Amino acid sequence: MKVAILGATGMVGQRFIEMLEGHPFFELTDLAASSRSAGKTYKDAAKWYLEGEMPEELKDREVKEIDPKKIDADIVFSALPSDVAKDVEPAFAKEGFVVASNASSYREAPDVPLLIPEVNPEHLDMVKVQKENRGWDGCIITNPNCTTVMFTLSLKPVFDRFGLKSVFLTSMQALSGAGYDGVPSMAIQDNVIPFIRGEEEKVDVEILKIFGEFNGSDVILPDFKVSTSCNRVAVTDGHMESVFVKTKEECSIEDIKAVMANFKALPQELDLPSAPKTPIIVKEEEDRPQPRLDRMNERGMAVTVGRIREDPILDFKYTVLGHNTIRGAAGASVLNAEVLVKARKDLI
Amino acid sequence: MKVAILGATGMVGQRFIEMLEGHPFFELTDLAASSRSAGKTYKDAAKWYLEGEMPEELKDREVKEIDPKKIDADIVFSALPSDVAKDVEPAFAKEGFVVASNASSYREAPDVPLLIPEVNPEHLDMVKVQKENRGWDGCIITNPNCTTVMFTLSLKPVFDRFGLKSVFLTSMQALSGAGYDGVPSMAIQDNVIPFIRGEEEKVDVEILKIFGEFNGSDVILPDFKVSTSCNRVAVTDGHMESVFVKTKEECSIEDIKAVMANFKALPQELDLPSAPKTPIIVKEEEDRPQPRLDRMNERGMAVTVGRIREDPILDFKYTVLGHNTIRGAAGASVLNAEVLVKARKDLI
Amino acid sequence: MKVAILGATGMVGQRFIEMLEGHPFFELTDLAASSRSAGKTYKDAAKWYLEGEMPEELKDREVKEIDPKKIDADIVFSALPSDVAKDVEPAFAKEGFVVASNASSYREAPDVPLLIPEVNPEHLDMVKVQKENRGWDGCIITNPNCTTVMFTLSLKPVFDRFGLKSVFLTSMQALSGAGYDGVPSMAIQDNVIPFIRGEEEKVDVEILKIFGEFNGSDVILPDFKVSTSCNRVAVTDGHMESVFVKTKEECSIEDIKAVMANFKALPQELDLPSAPKTPIIVKEEEDRPQPRLDRMNERGMAVTVGRIREDPILDFKYTVLGHNTIRGAAGASVLNAEVLVKARKDLI
Amino acid sequence: MKVAILGATGMVGQRFIEMLEGHPFFELTDLAASSRSAGKTYKDAAKWYLEGEMPEELKDREVKEIDPKKIDADIVFSALPSDVAKDVEPAFAKEGFVVASNASSYREAPDVPLLIPEVNPEHLDMVKVQKENRGWDGCIITNPNCTTVMFTLSLKPVFDRFGLKSVFLTSMQALSGAGYDGVPSMAIQDNVIPFIRGEEEKVDVEILKIFGEFNGSDVILPDFKVSTSCNRVAVTDGHMESVFVKTKEECSIEDIKAVMANFKALPQELDLPSAPKTPIIVKEEEDRPQPRLDRMNERGMAVTVGRIREDPILDFKYTVLGHNTIRGAAGASVLNAEVLVKARKDLI
Repeated sequence: MKVAILGATGMVGQRFIEMLEGHPFFELTDLAASSRSAGKTYKDAAKWYLEGEMPEELKDREVKEIDPKKIDADIVFSALPSDVAKDVEPAFAKEGFVVASNASSYREAPDVPLLIPEVNPEHLDMVKVQKENRGWDGCIITNPNCTTVMFTLSLKPVFDRFGLKSVFLTSMQALSGAGYDGVPSMAIQDNVIPFIRGEEEKVDVEILKIFGEFNGSDVILPDFKVSTSCNRVAVTDGHMESVFVKTKEECSIEDIKAVMANFKALPQELDLPSAPKTPIIVKEEEDRPQPRLDRMNERGMAVTVGRIREDPILDFKYTVLGHNTIRGAAGASVLNAEVLVKARKDLI
Repeated sequence: MKVAILGATGMVGQRFIEMLEGHPFFELTDLAASSRSAGKTYKDAAKWYLEGEMPEELKDREVKEIDPKKIDADIVFSALPSDVAKDVEPAFAKEGFVVASNASSYREAPDVPLLIPEVNPEHLDMVKVQKENRGWDGCIITNPNCTTVMFTLSLKPVFDRFGLKSVFLTSMQALSGAGYDGVPSMAIQDNVIPFIRGEEEKVDVEILKIFGEFNGSDVILPDFKVSTSCNRVAVTDGHMESVFVKTKEECSIEDIKAVMANFKALPQELDLPSAPKTPIIVKEEEDRPQPRLDRMNERGMAVTVGRIREDPILDFKYTVLGHNTIRGAAGASVLNAEVLVKARKDLI
Repeated sequence: MKVAILGATGMVGQRFIEMLEGHPFFELTDLAASSRSAGKTYKDAAKWYLEGEMPEELKDREVKEIDPKKIDADIVFSALPSDVAKDVEPAFAKEGFVVASNASSYREAPDVPLLIPEVNPEHLDMVKVQKENRGWDGCIITNPNCTTVMFTLSLKPVFDRFGLKSVFLTSMQALSGAGYDGVPSMAIQDNVIPFIRGEEEKVDVEILKIFGEFNGSDVILPDFKVSTSCNRVAVTDGHMESVFVKTKEECSIEDIKAVMANFKALPQELDLPSAPKTPIIVKEEEDRPQPRLDRMNERGMAVTVGRIREDPILDFKYTVLGHNTIRGAAGASVLNAEVLVKARKDLI
Repeated sequence: MKVAILGATGMVGQRFIEMLEGHPFFELTDLAASSRSAGKTYKDAAKWYLEGEMPEELKDREVKEIDPKKIDADIVFSALPSDVAKDVEPAFAKEGFVVASNASSYREAPDVPLLIPEVNPEHLDMVKVQKENRGWDGCIITNPNCTTVMFTLSLKPVFDRFGLKSVFLTSMQALSGAGYDGVPSMAIQDNVIPFIRGEEEKVDVEILKIFGEFNGSDVILPDFKVSTSCNRVAVTDGHMESVFVKTKEECSIEDIKAVMANFKALPQELDLPSAPKTPIIVKEEEDRPQPRLDRMNERGMAVTVGRIREDPILDFKYTVLGHNTIRGAAGASVLNAEVLVKARKDLI
């Protein structure tokens, strides 16, 4: 299948390129970006932010306008800012494209799947409703905020087996989450910033939709609550989260370790190209996970969990880490597209 | 009064030196350190870790052995490691010294004050019991762990006015807290470490003793609970803490801001030399406190609080920051000594 | 005398504010900034980037337009970007203001002093020529690029005593040199950037003008050469420079240490408020200077030198450090104004 | 061939493990380390410092003593500290092992090759002399200091084509070069350290031996000179070097770029497993090389060069970067062993 990237010059756009190189399902046909870049070669339009060099074969490719008429693809991966995505993604969906989006614009729409393929693949049924509701040939599927993905994925087997009552989360988020120019070095050098605009609001609600039950028209939200405190730390990639959890059913620490470590889901069963073999890696070392050491586990697609221990007030507490621009952004969208293509061809 | 520093060559020892330069109550008579350093001049024994230069007048002073017989002082400030402090501090107390200690060895002893002068100055009464119990001429008074100080001081007015039910705390702690050689740069560069040995255990219990009621023989602990998750981040100085709080009485966000911002206590009334004018600085900016910008507020002796806001599960959440080797270590001990000297001469 | 700051909201502007608080010669009457900020209160126009808080008394002061008609001052300190300074500074000079500028726009003009008061105070004579040439009531005096100041000041006594033949310089420059938003954290975290636009060109020529002889109309440049390689490192403040030097006359390492350590000049003789007592601090420790430990020496106004040693090819090599936004920017301009006011009232 | 690692628990030891996993020539039979570790399983003896996890198959392998009698191998890779290597390496060589050493103990011995296989493979002839001189069955071959490798390799084609007269070098070296515990985070956070013990002395002489001509008994040193200034910066891996060069023959910037970019040597001809295809990668971007982006070029085995430009005093200047624990340490030793095995079987 032909795929294109919208917003191909930014950091998440470049992660998309990385994920799609040599992909067995997808052929990268078009790179699109804002009018500032469109018409230029990719090498003139983009500074390559990732390790090593811009892929040779893309250097001279022309960057296209973000216009459904100009793009030759079946699926478009959107790394657009949410204010741009708001108008552009429906335009593409209307023209028959599958839009696999990392933007936040439609995450809360009741007919748009907010998807983690290991957690709520059945929400892909929303696409039917979406197409009907909106009269689109294509569709939009979204992945959650990068901070949401890590703890939500790690709590999936806990939610399934023991239920959840309350979750407190303090994040220590990487710089890349704000985009390449997002955090000035003078702001964060020898520092921590205890605020990320709009982040806590997203995190507190996204997990509820993801864990909600889709009854064919609405999502019935689960009845637990989340409280989040988001911080930026001086780390290139990898969001860390300290999590405190109260479950519904009684559970031991060994239970929690076991359900997390043994967790497998649809992407693993389907052996999808971007699926981690072990989606939740449970570490026993006392000082793991750590961003520099664990963010690239399973090529950046696993979340790594550690320090699962008793909580003196609730039931347990632990730390979870994941690569924010891979598992939390570009890789999330690619995995969404893979599950759609492999398991739900009927929806395309 | 004459004062000496035990453990004068390390980072906390040097902060003691800084705090005591030109001090109106105290004259620094002796510097003592381990046998590796004793007998040398201070400039040969110590590498100066702080900004600028080692104070000129100390360079050629002889470093003394840590031996009560060799030290000429009324008060000794202890920056010793806890395994050394365990034996040494009682030896000094027995010989009539007031030991103002930053070590953890005696913090939990029921007859040793674990003191934050703004919070529990009445615990100084324990000194009477201590002298009786142990037959000492001198005494030991301690200050809490650096992580404990910040949130405990900030919660004091909340505890007094609204009571506390539960507190969740995630710390992002500075490198200096582990001592100069404590954290290898290869461990923390571009990284976060979600573990600090022994720290969570200390934090969870110290606040209870501090907020406890001393009835003349025992401390009646309050009935709230604390759960802590400690992390090390790449910051030189300044511990940040994300705190989630449930109170006993109902309270509004404005109430919390007001009781914190208006808080004054004995050190402020006595106008002690190291006392911050405003012990809890409440910031309204959305992205404060920050370690680099706020750790030196009130010469490192205030804690700075920000982001006081509603908590969707409990009552409120906020962020607190303080300088870990000043307010959380050397400055804490010096303020302890100041309050003792000024308000409780009867105990010395 | 009344002084104003042009470009008062940026990082160098804020350093000006810091330098001018309680200044014995100068009263800060006006803060001016671009049209985006003009008309607002300072606290609404500016985010305070420095330690602690914005000075209380400035919070509600109205930010003025950068217009000579609207500014009430005798001296204006310019922290403007050079493209803006190019037009604005002459306009102020024409209207009779003394412009003490940190911008690069007029540094190379033959009738504008490029001043380090310890090095070439006699270049203030250029002001006479400038006023005549340009028909201005006021004048422009400039300070050098932040990288130029450190090694030039440290080489002044060497140049005077032994002459210079060639100088190789590799800089490791702080983040603040690029302005608050200048270097994205993703660019520099766990990294070094071996390029700073336009910097090497400035450094290679500025020292020649500074060390040149002003004959009343022209500057006769000295005949040595400089070659520079500029790098950005992950340090908030403090430019480090590794310098390799060939002198004209023979010199020993002890000679070099002595002439540097004993150097005093006009600002020290005049005891100017911002003048360091010791402009060049020579350290004997094997691993100094270091940015975090030495940048604030003499309130940021000294340069600190270390590792003066034999060079196997040339004569000697050493390392020099200075605070780039104080000695290399705001403090440089303020010291320029002080020397003008105190020693050359005739020129104002 | 069977290979073992001496000093297998440290950071360079672990890089050896990484380089040897699945190696086509070598089978890793033994891990050896100091008596503190010997007898334990590798997972109990070593904390894994690199990304991801310790290789599964090594976790339960017993760590051996560093004793030629206990080691089953043809080649031993030495990551020992130089004071230990001094005695141990000859003991192994005597017993018939090829010792491929990263230690500095024998680098300057006239009968021990100080080898960069792209630069001076003919120095392997020294092994014959060494065996004769010392009566050993085995031999020692060494690789240079990590700082030496980068600029020496990049200057090889320049030396061959244009000759060298003088080289000035300022290094900005990574933390890993000092070993995992080498640099405390408090020493380097928000800082630069302008001193690395013993480093400048090594760098200034090693390049001369490497570029020297071996006449069968002695090395005739070339007649150029090097002057070095070494700095430590807050970067995990990747040594950066600003280099200023005077050649013997005239050369243009384009000449220099061409000879560097086109350089190939014996390891490339032999297509050795660890040889980079392009040993010197020449970048045209104005701000490269950079440690985070370029250190892993060619799996860490290439050096990356940029900013080749005119020097106003000498002939040209440029920046070179290489991975200090791969190209500058473990990878260097492995490539040495590969060239020996493939091209000089006669010497083993």
